Amino acid sequence: MDYLKQLNWRYATKRMNKKTVPQNKIDNILEAIRLSPSSMGLQPYTVVVIEDEAVRAKMLPAIYNQPQIVEGSHVLVFAVWDGITPEQVQTFIKQIAMEREIPEKSLDGFKNMILGFISQKEKDDLINWNAKQAYIALGTGMVAAALEEVDATPMEGFDPQALDQLLKLKEKGLKSVAILALGYRDSDEDKLAQLKKVRRPKEEFFLKIDSVN
Amino acid sequence: MDYLKQLNWRYATKRMNKKTVPQNKIDNILEAIRLSPSSMGLQPYTVVVIEDEAVRAKMLPAIYNQPQIVEGSHVLVFAVWDGITPEQVQTFIKQIAMEREIPEKSLDGFKNMILGFISQKEKDDLINWNAKQAYIALGTGMVAAALEEVDATPMEGFDPQALDQLLKLKEKGLKSVAILALGYRDSDEDKLAQLKKVRRPKEEFFLKIDSVN
Repeated sequence: MDYLKQLNWRYATKRMNKKTVPQNKIDNILEAIRLSPSSMGLQPYTVVVIEDEAVRAKMLPAIYNQPQIVEGSHVLVFAVWDGITPEQVQTFIKQIAMEREIPEKSLDGFKNMILGFISQKEKDDLINWNAKQAYIALGTGMVAAALEEVDATPMEGFDPQALDQLLKLKEKGLKSVAILALGYRDSDEDKLAQLKKVRRPKEEFFLKIDSVN
Repeated sequence: MDYLKQLNWRYATKRMNKKTVPQNKIDNILEAIRLSPSSMGLQPYTVVVIEDEAVRAKMLPAIYNQPQIVEGSHVLVFAVWDGITPEQVQTFIKQIAMEREIPEKSLDGFKNMILGFISQKEKDDLINWNAKQAYIALGTGMVAAALEEVDATPMEGFDPQALDQLLKLKEKGLKSVAILALGYRDSDEDKLAQLKKVRRPKEEFFLKIDSVN
């Protein structure tokens, strides 16, 4: 699998053809997202998975009627924790102890480091930090989709309040920050499908530093 | 290439063995990063590439002496634009017009949309937004490294002011937000190397929504 070829193949698909992405491909993309690294391993977000067609249709107004929501077969909503509570840290620590079969006590130093980190941040800063961790997973998910030859459209342009209300995310302590629609491109309808991919030129995008004073 | 296997193989390497990552692997990882999606395609960040050993050694204090900086062979610093200027938008539009061989004028609607977007945001919000775009690339870079069987350690724990000063990033309108050290694990020295990877369980990390009222 030539992953650079796949990254060149992918693009932010604007129109999809209503074909359903097979479950095994969805499972692989979701697993890649779940395996994504995050700072301190905390994964301070939830990935909402919506396949049901009626639910996706109801989401449309909150996502300004972007057609991929209903022309694709699955929608992922990356929803970050609305802050970070000591209880969430405790759950995380408990899980590490359980999985690695070590006493929770042995993780006290690590736990206190995380608690110290979150206590220094305002709630909005924490939400921003959570969002950055979720964007690592968004990046991972887009690469995974490309490797599965599944089209994926990332979206930031939506009304998070309206979407959170519809999906009842606020009650769960979650805030939607990004969306990934999954499906297959409709190359006839999508004007973008044939356009050349544009990326900043290497000479400008990379800055090689070989010496400092 | 089983990418899920590679994502399971990777971990936030704490100790590296000083072996040099071959140039072709570095080139591939950098190209994957450059191909990363970003909102509106703007790529509002620069990737600083440091291979020189002396420069990496000088970076150590700003990165709280994390050994991967010198035990790996390359360090990438993700440095976001310190805001977004209309000139940067103009450069972006010019580049699209050139690459796609279309008149710049035909992109006026798109340009005005971007200018409208940035004019509504405070500088700090723009920097945060830029950082989120950079984190997509950070995610892409970590997957690419795993596919290349190269170890990669993401780092947020560093002194951005000190690092920006050393690398003279402020003068270039850049702010460092994340680091990726590239190299090869030292499995004997790294206590984390043999530990079980811990991720939030599927049942909790994913939220499947099949109906809404």
